Amino acid sequence: MTEAIDIHTHVVPESFPPYAGKGANVPWPSMQDAHACHKHVMISGKVYRTVADGSWSVPRRIEDMGAMGVARQALSPMPELLSYWLPLADAKALIRFLNEEIARMIERAPERFVGLGAVPLQDVDASLDELEFVLAELRFAGVEIASHVNGVSIGDARFEPFFAECESRGAAVFVHALRPAGMDRIVGPFAEQAVCFPGDIGLAAASLVTGGIASRHPRLRIAFSHGGGVMPILVPRLDHAWKNLPKAQEALREAPGDIARRFFYDCLLFEPRAIRFLAESFGASQVVLGSDYPFNMGEKDPLGVLAKAGLGAQATADISGGNAKRFLGLK
Amino acid sequence: MTEAIDIHTHVVPESFPPYAGKGANVPWPSMQDAHACHKHVMISGKVYRTVADGSWSVPRRIEDMGAMGVARQALSPMPELLSYWLPLADAKALIRFLNEEIARMIERAPERFVGLGAVPLQDVDASLDELEFVLAELRFAGVEIASHVNGVSIGDARFEPFFAECESRGAAVFVHALRPAGMDRIVGPFAEQAVCFPGDIGLAAASLVTGGIASRHPRLRIAFSHGGGVMPILVPRLDHAWKNLPKAQEALREAPGDIARRFFYDCLLFEPRAIRFLAESFGASQVVLGSDYPFNMGEKDPLGVLAKAGLGAQATADISGGNAKRFLGLK
Repeated sequence: MTEAIDIHTHVVPESFPPYAGKGANVPWPSMQDAHACHKHVMISGKVYRTVADGSWSVPRRIEDMGAMGVARQALSPMPELLSYWLPLADAKALIRFLNEEIARMIERAPERFVGLGAVPLQDVDASLDELEFVLAELRFAGVEIASHVNGVSIGDARFEPFFAECESRGAAVFVHALRPAGMDRIVGPFAEQAVCFPGDIGLAAASLVTGGIASRHPRLRIAFSHGGGVMPILVPRLDHAWKNLPKAQEALREAPGDIARRFFYDCLLFEPRAIRFLAESFGASQVVLGSDYPFNMGEKDPLGVLAKAGLGAQATADISGGNAKRFLGLK
Repeated sequence: MTEAIDIHTHVVPESFPPYAGKGANVPWPSMQDAHACHKHVMISGKVYRTVADGSWSVPRRIEDMGAMGVARQALSPMPELLSYWLPLADAKALIRFLNEEIARMIERAPERFVGLGAVPLQDVDASLDELEFVLAELRFAGVEIASHVNGVSIGDARFEPFFAECESRGAAVFVHALRPAGMDRIVGPFAEQAVCFPGDIGLAAASLVTGGIASRHPRLRIAFSHGGGVMPILVPRLDHAWKNLPKAQEALREAPGDIARRFFYDCLLFEPRAIRFLAESFGASQVVLGSDYPFNMGEKDPLGVLAKAGLGAQATADISGGNAKRFLGLK
């Protein structure tokens, strides 16, 4: 039987060191007790999110993994902790703390966890230094990055050295939606993550295609959260544009769809039908398990939803764990 | 045999009257000769888009409809002409001109065309006046509106009187992506419409759900361009959020998916697989034919792509024309 590997789970430390930088009004996070087994993540004096103890507790996490049937999780920071908007020195300090916290969690059960660390991508040189640290010192499988860096698309040429290094080092890159486009167009009582994440992660995936980075780095192992969001809907449109816009075809040798079929996508879609559409669009070989554990918007039964997608035993096993081994570079 | 009805086609007049308003630097459009059978739409001294003569020529349009197998088209303005950003007096003048141009095209072949007019939605009272004009005087089936009005979601409460009037008058509302969210995250040689439209039209559809307007106006007949973009991916996530966010469930009595299954969606997706997913998500009864005729990014063979979706004879016939009759309120 395939061991299930969940590539989309998040860590929030039980506490943060107090702010020790030189800035004023830096939105440095802290934790505050909430109801039983929960804490508030406080940012700039407000509750950013209330999170369950699975966020930091290894025993609780292993108990929950048992209930979900998950053998292994990739641990990545809660995206709002990625700190691209902090002064660089503060971002480096917070990110180093996060990465070491994740490493400590892995140490307690090394056969159950792999690490996807943070890097301060607002400064590409600094992100290369931290990439080296998480790969060489902490032995992480790779990194988590956001769908954009302070509004600049990750498909922008300035980030190409980072992706080139990830490709050459064989580091897995997990891209997660964050502070999405279109937040000024949310109405009603639904949160940004409910409404805007799928469009935003699609923009990130598309931008790596349309800007050429994915084409120039074909061995890059990269996965997108939330099933790539709009990406399976968008790719036929990009292919159509590529065929009809001469300048697009001049700039990009391959069809967008051929590039997109090298990416990985988690199956955090809440619907068997949507998972099947994702697998049909990009191939079952490119879909990996993702739950968003331990957050409220997560999927409590990712294997159950996957099983109902009707993809057959082999594809279902591949999506449960085999593809994640390839993505994460596990033996 | 079902007569095919294409609900997503656009009109650009052959010429515009010169600007006669009182503003300075108003981006009033004009037309300039381009290569054979084409003209440039000039806005603020630049070529906004170069369009083919099917944009204004009824004989050319009817010839092309023959090649596409389309019996009837809904005519709506090129979205960039919707003029929400013009001073109100200028917007009213331009929109009236557009609506009368569309009416003149319909007069030349009334059995082949129906009208979806423009309204100056930046001023809800003025939009109600123009709605009355296009319904009562011009006998249009309804209106085309954009996915947002100068950045304000169409799900915002300020627009509810407009939707309430459309519901009570039985006016069809066709929502088209325009000046989409995320344009600052486009990289490479692909245009905004190639990359950002699907996310943006999904935000528009979602906002009518999450803000409650669609729930309070269940008889509103409304269709979304580009297959609703991310909407079929987004709805399971909205349903999941609705179940898990108490404040969302308090505000909205129905599940988002139940509301979304009352909307119509065109099938401008370029891929049989995506059309099938759309029909599975919302029901074949809610999908209508759309080509984006006569623009470059349009689908030249909408019925051919639909036929390959494998939806069976009845559903295919409904999507070809039967559903559009319901949406447009045709006999």
